[in-house]
Amino acid sequence: MSTHFVRFFSQALAGMGEFYMCLPEKDLPVFLKDNPYYQRGTKTLILLHGYNGGSSDWLYGSQMQDYAMKYNLAVVTPAGRNSFYLNKKATGYHFQTFIGEELVRFLQNTYGLAMNKEDTFIGGFSMGGFGALHTGFAYPETFGGVMALSSALIIHQLKDMSPKMQSPMANYEYYVDTFGDLSKAEKSDHNPEVLYKRNKRKGIANPRIYMACGTEDFLITPNREMRDFLKKQKADLKYEEGPGMHNWDFWTPQTYKGIEYLLEG
Amino acid sequence: MSTHFVRFFSQALAGMGEFYMCLPEKDLPVFLKDNPYYQRGTKTLILLHGYNGGSSDWLYGSQMQDYAMKYNLAVVTPAGRNSFYLNKKATGYHFQTFIGEELVRFLQNTYGLAMNKEDTFIGGFSMGGFGALHTGFAYPETFGGVMALSSALIIHQLKDMSPKMQSPMANYEYYVDTFGDLSKAEKSDHNPEVLYKRNKRKGIANPRIYMACGTEDFLITPNREMRDFLKKQKADLKYEEGPGMHNWDFWTPQTYKGIEYLLEG
Amino acid sequence: MSTHFVRFFSQALAGMGEFYMCLPEKDLPVFLKDNPYYQRGTKTLILLHGYNGGSSDWLYGSQMQDYAMKYNLAVVTPAGRNSFYLNKKATGYHFQTFIGEELVRFLQNTYGLAMNKEDTFIGGFSMGGFGALHTGFAYPETFGGVMALSSALIIHQLKDMSPKMQSPMANYEYYVDTFGDLSKAEKSDHNPEVLYKRNKRKGIANPRIYMACGTEDFLITPNREMRDFLKKQKADLKYEEGPGMHNWDFWTPQTYKGIEYLLEG
Amino acid sequence: MSTHFVRFFSQALAGMGEFYMCLPEKDLPVFLKDNPYYQRGTKTLILLHGYNGGSSDWLYGSQMQDYAMKYNLAVVTPAGRNSFYLNKKATGYHFQTFIGEELVRFLQNTYGLAMNKEDTFIGGFSMGGFGALHTGFAYPETFGGVMALSSALIIHQLKDMSPKMQSPMANYEYYVDTFGDLSKAEKSDHNPEVLYKRNKRKGIANPRIYMACGTEDFLITPNREMRDFLKKQKADLKYEEGPGMHNWDFWTPQTYKGIEYLLEG
Repeated sequence: MSTHFVRFFSQALAGMGEFYMCLPEKDLPVFLKDNPYYQRGTKTLILLHGYNGGSSDWLYGSQMQDYAMKYNLAVVTPAGRNSFYLNKKATGYHFQTFIGEELVRFLQNTYGLAMNKEDTFIGGFSMGGFGALHTGFAYPETFGGVMALSSALIIHQLKDMSPKMQSPMANYEYYVDTFGDLSKAEKSDHNPEVLYKRNKRKGIANPRIYMACGTEDFLITPNREMRDFLKKQKADLKYEEGPGMHNWDFWTPQTYKGIEYLLEG
Repeated sequence: MSTHFVRFFSQALAGMGEFYMCLPEKDLPVFLKDNPYYQRGTKTLILLHGYNGGSSDWLYGSQMQDYAMKYNLAVVTPAGRNSFYLNKKATGYHFQTFIGEELVRFLQNTYGLAMNKEDTFIGGFSMGGFGALHTGFAYPETFGGVMALSSALIIHQLKDMSPKMQSPMANYEYYVDTFGDLSKAEKSDHNPEVLYKRNKRKGIANPRIYMACGTEDFLITPNREMRDFLKKQKADLKYEEGPGMHNWDFWTPQTYKGIEYLLEG
Repeated sequence: MSTHFVRFFSQALAGMGEFYMCLPEKDLPVFLKDNPYYQRGTKTLILLHGYNGGSSDWLYGSQMQDYAMKYNLAVVTPAGRNSFYLNKKATGYHFQTFIGEELVRFLQNTYGLAMNKEDTFIGGFSMGGFGALHTGFAYPETFGGVMALSSALIIHQLKDMSPKMQSPMANYEYYVDTFGDLSKAEKSDHNPEVLYKRNKRKGIANPRIYMACGTEDFLITPNREMRDFLKKQKADLKYEEGPGMHNWDFWTPQTYKGIEYLLEG
Repeated sequence: MSTHFVRFFSQALAGMGEFYMCLPEKDLPVFLKDNPYYQRGTKTLILLHGYNGGSSDWLYGSQMQDYAMKYNLAVVTPAGRNSFYLNKKATGYHFQTFIGEELVRFLQNTYGLAMNKEDTFIGGFSMGGFGALHTGFAYPETFGGVMALSSALIIHQLKDMSPKMQSPMANYEYYVDTFGDLSKAEKSDHNPEVLYKRNKRKGIANPRIYMACGTEDFLITPNREMRDFLKKQKADLKYEEGPGMHNWDFWTPQTYKGIEYLLEG
C-alpha cells in the first residue's frame, strides 16, 4: 500500500491541482516492469467531494484505504472546490477539463493508471455525484463507470433562481458564476442529460451507472427524476434507495456497493 | 521547531482554507502557559504566493524554516488561488476576508498568535505583493507591517483591457471575474491606494511598508509608481531596487531584508 | 472542522515527532477566547496505530472526522513506529515519553487541549491497544480513559522467545531491542499489569478501560487474560467480544462503542 | 512542476517509508509515453537529512523546487530518522536497504525514474553526508554520483567511546544500537572506506564524489581525513572548503555547486 499527496501544475486551473491517492500494492515487485499498475490490472476510481468540501473529505470521512486494498483500486480524490466540476469562461476555472482530461493524463503518464475506459471509474457524493455523472458523460471514452451518491442534480432548479433569493448555501451570484446564464443551463452542456443524449445520438457508449440516494435526503426528488430520465433512455443503470440522509452514514456503505457493481461490469 | 499543514472551514471560502506554518520554538516549555507564542514574543508573518501558485510555494521555493528560526517568527503561508486576495460577490470567493479576518482569527484562537498589530506582518511576491499591500491597508488595525516584493500592481491597467485582448496569462473574463467592472476598479476598494488614503483621512495608522523590485522585472514600472504614490502620501516606506527578475533569486534575499526592516520598526 | 498535520521536535525521539489531528469546531468564534477548545469542553482522544503502521493509519483506514464531529473530540493520531510505545535506553527511542508527556504537553501548550485527566483519552488497536493500556497506566494522572482494541498483549510470551525462533513478523533481535531482557520483561515496567498494580498500591486512580477483541482474532487469548487480570483487580472495565478478526471491519464499529463508553464516564 | 508526499510499505522498515519529491515537468505531455521522466532525461537526486532531522528538512530548509526546475531533476527527500542510513539486525531498522534498494525500486517502478547509474545521484548533509557516501559505495551500480556536505564521518571515533561518556547529542547505547560493536565498526561494512576499497578491488566503478565542508564546522577534521583517503585511492573526487559552519547558510549554495559538478560528469 502506498499513499500519495500530489500537486501538479494544471493549465485548466492556471495553478496547482491536487489529489490524494491510495495505491493498493502490498510490496514492490522484484523486477522492474513498465507501468506496474496497468500490468497487474489495478483499476482506477476517482472520487469527487461535495460542496463546501475538499480533496481530503474522502480521506478524513470514509475508508479510502479499504476500497483500495479490497478491490485492487487506485483511489484518487482530487480537489474541485465549489465548481460543480464545470468549466467557466474565466482562465483558471476549468474543473471539467482538470478532472476529465488533465488529471486522467497525469495518472496515465505518471503511474500508468487509467489507461483505458474499462479500468477507469468516477464517483462522488452530493456536488461530487453531479460531477461524477457530468464528467462521466462528458468523457464517455475515458470512464467506463459512474457512481453517483445523493447527487446534487440541481440543474433544473436554476432557471427559477432570482437575484433576490435568500439561501444559507450560496447566493445568486454564485450560481451565475458557476453555471452561466441560469435560464439556459438546462439546455447547455452543463446538464448531464444533454451530454448523455448527445453521446447516444452519436453512438458513443455512455458509462455504466450506479446511483443511490437516501429517502430522507433533501435531494431525493431530483435523484428520482434522474433515475426516470436514465431509465427512459435505457441506460445501463442500477439505482438504489434506502433509509438515509445526506452524510457518511449513507455514503460509506453505498460506496462499497457501488464499487462492487461497477467492478462486476 | 514545529511544522504544520492546516485546513479549516472558512465561511468566506464556503469550504476549506489552508495554510502551512513553521513555528520557531525549539522545544516545549516544561510548565504550561496560556498562549505560549504570545507570551514569548513570537511575531507572525503571513506570506502570500503569486498568480499560478499555491500554499506550498514559499515552502518548496524558499527557506521558510530559516525565517522562522532566525527571527522568532511564526511563518504562515495560506492558499489564495488566483484571487488577487480580493472579495468577489459570489459566495465562496472572499479571499480578502479569508486572509485578513478568518485566518488571523484562527491564528489568534488556536495558537495565541497575531494578537496585536505590532506583532503581525503580511508579505508576498507578485500577486502576493499586491495582496500584502491591499490586505495590509484593508486591515490597518491588524497588520503593523507589509513586505511587498515585485508586486503585481496592475490595477491602473485594468481599464484598458478589452474582451478581444490576447494574453498568455489570463483572459478578459478572468479580470472581470476577479476585479469586477474594470472601468471602475481603479476607484474601488480593490485599489490599495484608495484604502491607504481612506485610512489616512480617518486617522488610522497605515502599516509600515517594505517594497522591493528587480530592475529587470516586467513589473518595475507599476512598482515605481506605487513608490511615488506612497512617498507623496508620506508613508512609512522603505523601497529597494536592484538587479533581478521575477523569481526566487530576487525574492529569497529580499525576504531577509524585508523581515529585518519590519522587525526593527 | 479543521485538519492538521504537525511535526514538532521531540527530545524523547531526538528528532521530529508527528501527528494528524482533526478538530471539531464548525467555525471560528467571533470573539477571542484563550484556549478555545478547553473552554468549549472539547475532549481529546489520542489514537495509536499498530505494528507495521504509521500516523496516517487511522486517517486512511477509519472515519476520524466522524469521531471528531459526532463527539466533540480532538482526535490525534501520532506516529509510534514499531516501538510498542515503550522507552528504550538508546537516545531517540523514548516513545512512552513522547506520547505520554511530550505530545500531551504540545497539545496543552499549543491548543489548550488535554488539560486534565477527565478530558483526555488514549486508544489504539493491536500494538496500539497495548500502547493505550501501557501509556494509560504509565500516566494515570494524564489519561482518564483507555480504549484497547485487539491489543497485542504479548508481554507474557516474550520469555519463551529464543534467538533461533522463526517468525514472519519480526526477529529475536527486534524483541530484545524493543523490550530489553526478555526474561525480565514480564516483571518490568514494560508490563501494563505491573504499572496498574503499582498505581493501585499508591492510591492513584487508574483510568477507566474499554477493551474489545474479535473472537476470530489471533490475539483473543491474551486479551481474555488481560480481562481476567483487570477483573481480579476490580478495574473499571468494560470488555466486549464478538465475531471479528484483526482488521478495520472490527475496529471501526468498536471505536464508536469505545468512545461512547469513555464519554459516559 | 509537481510535488509529492508519498508513503509506501517498506519490508526493510517493517512499516511505512516516506519521501517528499519535486518533479520538474512544467506541464503534462499531450500524448502518452511510457516512463515519461526516463524518456525526457530527467535525472534523480536523493537528498538525505541529518541527525535530529526528517523527510521535510530539505523542504523547509532549502530550495528544493529550484534544484528540480533549474537542473531537470527529480528531487527526492526520504526519512532516515537517526539511523546513519545503516542496517541494524533487528527487524524494521534496515535503512541502508530502504534507501539503496526499496526507494530506488519504488522510483523506478512507479515513475520510471532512477533507471540507470548515470542518471541517479545521492546527496546529504551531516549524518546525511555520511549516508550519501555510505549508500553510494554500498550500491555502486545504482548511484553515479555522491554529494556529501559537512559529513558526519564519525566512524573512526566510535572505538574510543565508553559507557560512561557524556554527550548532549546521544548516549553510548545509541551508538551501539546504530553501529553494533563499536570496537569493530571501523573494519565493518558500516565504514564507507571499507566499501570503497572493496568495490575497487572487485573492479566495480565507484561513483563520482563531490565533498564540501565549512572551515568552521566541528566536522572539518574527519572531512579532511576522508578527502585524504579518497585522494590516496585516486577517487573521482572534487573537494571544496570555505568559510562556513554546520548550517543551511553553507549547505544551500554548496548544493548548487554539487549538483552542477555531478551533472557535468
